Amino acid sequence: MAKFIMIGENIHCIAPSIRAAMDERKPDPILKRAEDQLKAGATYLDFNIGPARKGSKGLMAWGIKLLQEHFDNVPIALDTADIAEIEDGIKVYNRAKGKPIVNSADAGDRIKYIDVAAANDAIVLALCSKEGVPSDNDERMGYCQQMLEHGMNLGMAPDDMWFDPLFLVIKGMQDIQRDVLSFIHDLSSQGLNSTGGLSNVSNGMPKEVRPLVNSIMISMAINQGLTSAIVNPCEQQLNRAIKTSDVIMNNTLYADSYLDL
Amino acid sequence: MAKFIMIGENIHCIAPSIRAAMDERKPDPILKRAEDQLKAGATYLDFNIGPARKGSKGLMAWGIKLLQEHFDNVPIALDTADIAEIEDGIKVYNRAKGKPIVNSADAGDRIKYIDVAAANDAIVLALCSKEGVPSDNDERMGYCQQMLEHGMNLGMAPDDMWFDPLFLVIKGMQDIQRDVLSFIHDLSSQGLNSTGGLSNVSNGMPKEVRPLVNSIMISMAINQGLTSAIVNPCEQQLNRAIKTSDVIMNNTLYADSYLDL
Repeated sequence: MAKFIMIGENIHCIAPSIRAAMDERKPDPILKRAEDQLKAGATYLDFNIGPARKGSKGLMAWGIKLLQEHFDNVPIALDTADIAEIEDGIKVYNRAKGKPIVNSADAGDRIKYIDVAAANDAIVLALCSKEGVPSDNDERMGYCQQMLEHGMNLGMAPDDMWFDPLFLVIKGMQDIQRDVLSFIHDLSSQGLNSTGGLSNVSNGMPKEVRPLVNSIMISMAINQGLTSAIVNPCEQQLNRAIKTSDVIMNNTLYADSYLDL
Repeated sequence: MAKFIMIGENIHCIAPSIRAAMDERKPDPILKRAEDQLKAGATYLDFNIGPARKGSKGLMAWGIKLLQEHFDNVPIALDTADIAEIEDGIKVYNRAKGKPIVNSADAGDRIKYIDVAAANDAIVLALCSKEGVPSDNDERMGYCQQMLEHGMNLGMAPDDMWFDPLFLVIKGMQDIQRDVLSFIHDLSSQGLNSTGGLSNVSNGMPKEVRPLVNSIMISMAINQGLTSAIVNPCEQQLNRAIKTSDVIMNNTLYADSYLDL
């Protein structure tokens, strides 16, 4: 198996300093977060500009150029509800270090994100959901197959579709967590790539508990075959859990110093 | 699913202070370790006196009486290569809080430990191995079925046979870890109980890394269906990983204070 892929989630417009940096096209706060995440081992950087808003036209392309110029064409996940920004962004995207990721499609209204990925030889993150939370794994797999077929009909390679089981909050949906993990196993059994926004599982929990819960959940998910996740790579406990999971799964060779590698 | 069962491993003759306490029938060091483990959430206490040696006759029975008198008939795993000591120990064992565990049988010479468990209405820990390390999961499952049949022919309930997949050291056997986890899933799929000496996985690793590696491994194992393990419940990182795994698996109800419960 390949090493687990971390998609760094920290350049997100929900953070006030990043929102301001995006609005004012101010590079420094964005570059700082990019550098920290890459140092911590992120492979991809997620660049999340949120929905379309006044002044956001051209923001995605600006961010891609900024990040790729400063960090040796780092591969990027283009994350926005404004599909025109994704199309604009891909035009300036340099593929030297990897295809762009289109974030994200689902089996409902957002299935058109698969079309954008297919038209631009990109990877697509595909949420196995349509409206609300799927009621069981059969429904999840139905959406997965529907999106897979849609993408393949447009000429996409299955490897370029990364399926998201939809990580759900434990507080309130505790009884569903085993299903989610089991669904990751089902995806893996079919040789499909997978991903997801992990930190959702610990939403609403006390701050000191969240890294622990995220760490245990991702370890279980990696064991079930999860191939990537959108995470904060700078969170040390989580980062170490991922490295240790990679060792146990034999994705990376063990060395006594593996946590520092 | 039921809550994960911790069998506390800390009363072990390999520790010099415990060896001396056993040799001199000195209660205090043993009672101290028992108390610490029970406070940390151990259900069973393992009482490991090693192989037969001069002066060890009657030691198991002495230990059982000591522990059960002080800790409200705490259930105990009788751990020794001296089968006569196990038989003697069971005679004084009080079942008010649970059957004794006979530790341990295998599919080779130690299959007679199953006979002792069957003759005494005890639980038996059954290692899925014969001589050396099984070469694959088919071999592991062969030993499991052989021991299961042996026990059932003697009238044992399958629930009273706790199968040990044989946790192996990562340093040197890194490529086998996924098999072990997958075998736990196979046991669980058959509705069988399972257990094992977890800490073996991190043998030879730097001291500061071991709790992390043990924690991630046990989380994966619990997700695959492991129902108990022989562990140090006082190791905080491991203890928290087990509690968190129980929450994710919906074995215990989540509360914000779940780590303190």
